[in-house]
Amino acid sequence: MDMAALQNRLREFAQARDWEQFHTPKNLAMALAAEAGELLEIFQWLTDQQARAIIESEADLQLVRDELADILIYLIRLADVLGISLEDAVEAKLQRNERRYPVELARGNATKYNPRS
Amino acid sequence: MDMAALQNRLREFAQARDWEQFHTPKNLAMALAAEAGELLEIFQWLTDQQARAIIESEADLQLVRDELADILIYLIRLADVLGISLEDAVEAKLQRNERRYPVELARGNATKYNPRS
Amino acid sequence: MDMAALQNRLREFAQARDWEQFHTPKNLAMALAAEAGELLEIFQWLTDQQARAIIESEADLQLVRDELADILIYLIRLADVLGISLEDAVEAKLQRNERRYPVELARGNATKYNPRS
Amino acid sequence: MDMAALQNRLREFAQARDWEQFHTPKNLAMALAAEAGELLEIFQWLTDQQARAIIESEADLQLVRDELADILIYLIRLADVLGISLEDAVEAKLQRNERRYPVELARGNATKYNPRS
Repeated sequence: MDMAALQNRLREFAQARDWEQFHTPKNLAMALAAEAGELLEIFQWLTDQQARAIIESEADLQLVRDELADILIYLIRLADVLGISLEDAVEAKLQRNERRYPVELARGNATKYNPRS
Repeated sequence: MDMAALQNRLREFAQARDWEQFHTPKNLAMALAAEAGELLEIFQWLTDQQARAIIESEADLQLVRDELADILIYLIRLADVLGISLEDAVEAKLQRNERRYPVELARGNATKYNPRS
Repeated sequence: MDMAALQNRLREFAQARDWEQFHTPKNLAMALAAEAGELLEIFQWLTDQQARAIIESEADLQLVRDELADILIYLIRLADVLGISLEDAVEAKLQRNERRYPVELARGNATKYNPRS
Repeated sequence: MDMAALQNRLREFAQARDWEQFHTPKNLAMALAAEAGELLEIFQWLTDQQARAIIESEADLQLVRDELADILIYLIRLADVLGISLEDAVEAKLQRNERRYPVELARGNATKYNPRS
């Protein structure tokens, strides 16, 4: 995926429609969270087994694809509006996670996942 | 950004820590939405003007960068677990949006943004 | 719970601190969603069994209590700011749900819960 | 609002439809967050002024009423499933907030609302 090209295309899409006025950081954060809510809605009543089986239904999978696309679109727009490089942000976070959760300590225990810790 | 390489790196990170058991579609959707909630928290009490001014504070911007990185990481993991191509999903969505919001109709009116429509 | 008394108390709390300026409908909706995100965070990596077992840990349960309280507080504030009666809203919704999901049809099938329907 | 009566009514509604199997803490937290996302969707593209003006449109206000009702319903169900008293939870939180944000310190400054603090 050419992230820079996609970012430009999304910016031009908004500019052509005079929608940049709506794309404030607050509004984009809200839109992203609303799409994350729609993603939850797909899975909320499913057992873990049913949730995994979603890949066998093209119709259900298309619902998920649409939500993931919307989330990525708003994520890229928000990064663009704030001048943030998603690539750099992810790289920095991954390096931090690698230091924070060394394999030998993180493996086979769920410390990270314990709400008490 | 090399999305395929990033997807592999995140998968290996989870595998090395035996964390794939936690990365079910349901859990990843929840984690993504939780990070979207943390993003909201940064902006929730700010005026639009203060929200835009966030780019002048390196500390605040770093908070946003971290949340965007977390959201992208969970987005990529969820796509990976479900065998979804984010690139194809976004392309399909963009083509649909272009048909749905033709410039001449969308420009200068806020129909899309009217909750009543 | 005396909802009207609670609503007044929350309004006075905000007024005394000159915080009503922050309590716009948009901001309160964001704050409520951010707290819902924190609630997700508590449960996101737990199995259903672990999530149920949370009631055995006073410390974990306190985390949940705090989030539920925050959500209810913002819900009441938002209703107050918009002049909405939560009691009437819930009553109307319950009557609709009773018509929409008659026991004989809803019982023993998960139609409501099928993302395809 | 008689919260205890409402809690009983919601429990009986779920029992009559054999829906208690779906009402796990995880699922209810997801459903609550998904409804919070729908609430965001109503406000996401509105200016603060437009968001306030929503009270002049009965149709828009009805959308908000429906979302607030759904959120309250899932909140009460989740509290019920975990044996949490919403009344006690809110009372404890309010007492904490009163200690944490004394009027003389909180008034006229936005410390709480400053992401840097």
